[in-house]
Amino acid sequence: MKCGVVIFPSKFVQDKANEFRKRFDPAYTLISPHVTIRSGFELNDDQLPTIISQLNEIASKIEPFELEINKVSSFAPVNNVIYLKVTPVDALKELHEKMHTGAFPKTKEYAFVPHITIGQQLQDAEFGDILGQLSMIQFSYNEMIDSIKLVYQLENGAWEVYETFKLGAKQ
Amino acid sequence: MKCGVVIFPSKFVQDKANEFRKRFDPAYTLISPHVTIRSGFELNDDQLPTIISQLNEIASKIEPFELEINKVSSFAPVNNVIYLKVTPVDALKELHEKMHTGAFPKTKEYAFVPHITIGQQLQDAEFGDILGQLSMIQFSYNEMIDSIKLVYQLENGAWEVYETFKLGAKQ
Repeated sequence: MKCGVVIFPSKFVQDKANEFRKRFDPAYTLISPHVTIRSGFELNDDQLPTIISQLNEIASKIEPFELEINKVSSFAPVNNVIYLKVTPVDALKELHEKMHTGAFPKTKEYAFVPHITIGQQLQDAEFGDILGQLSMIQFSYNEMIDSIKLVYQLENGAWEVYETFKLGAKQ
Repeated sequence: MKCGVVIFPSKFVQDKANEFRKRFDPAYTLISPHVTIRSGFELNDDQLPTIISQLNEIASKIEPFELEINKVSSFAPVNNVIYLKVTPVDALKELHEKMHTGAFPKTKEYAFVPHITIGQQLQDAEFGDILGQLSMIQFSYNEMIDSIKLVYQLENGAWEVYETFKLGAKQ
């Protein structure tokens, strides 16, 4: 199955992000607002226990940290994704790096730019306007993150949480 | 926020259930197929740590158990819900009971009939036909369940996993 590792921000930030996703993100109903730490990779059921054990190990060694969301940005001209920019603090970078070691596939498609997508698959004609509007809105949130989540994708495209891993927790 | 405690069956069972939910369940995009153990109750942020600690305690004392799905049934004439019937084994009943003790609200609206909803809010005119069709399909799955999940609802109605609790795990 297709798996990934994400951080879900607080309900407050999720509700805010969803106000925009509802209009601008076709994946709105498939997954809640999130920061992807390790993007989609294929796992079979046999590999799950090893990955879970590695995620426990990784999570236990990183303390809860502050997530800082500070502005609206976009991946243009690479693609028409609009997102809330998340400051790439050391904890995030370390989590990302460690999820390309051990049992994890080593493939890395993009440089790691932590973000919360709020718009995607927008038409070129509307993209500039929407980005312009959203960029004028003030987004500035800080909150503590104390867990990461292993998610998997169902046949209908929806993502489901498989397990939560507490940061800094002694399991 | 509104919280609940659920079991998510395997991806295999979820994909099967979604084949029907897609057509017959308006909540299809809001939550993945699940067995509700404790239905929606209000919690504020201050109460969360106590509930989480109680869920850890409850989960640690119940060993992983076999979930048995054996047929299609319905809550008619109470309402037009069609569901996959889940055998109410002791572990399920105990989980349900314990989530009405301690810090949990004691309110209990219905008798506990564990199930996986595959259709709801159906019109009376179509209900009988759909139930008739679905009842002829053979559903019989058994699988091990090793965790329960605390979920909360976002403003848009979608449910998100807050934390997973391993059954029988020594935390």
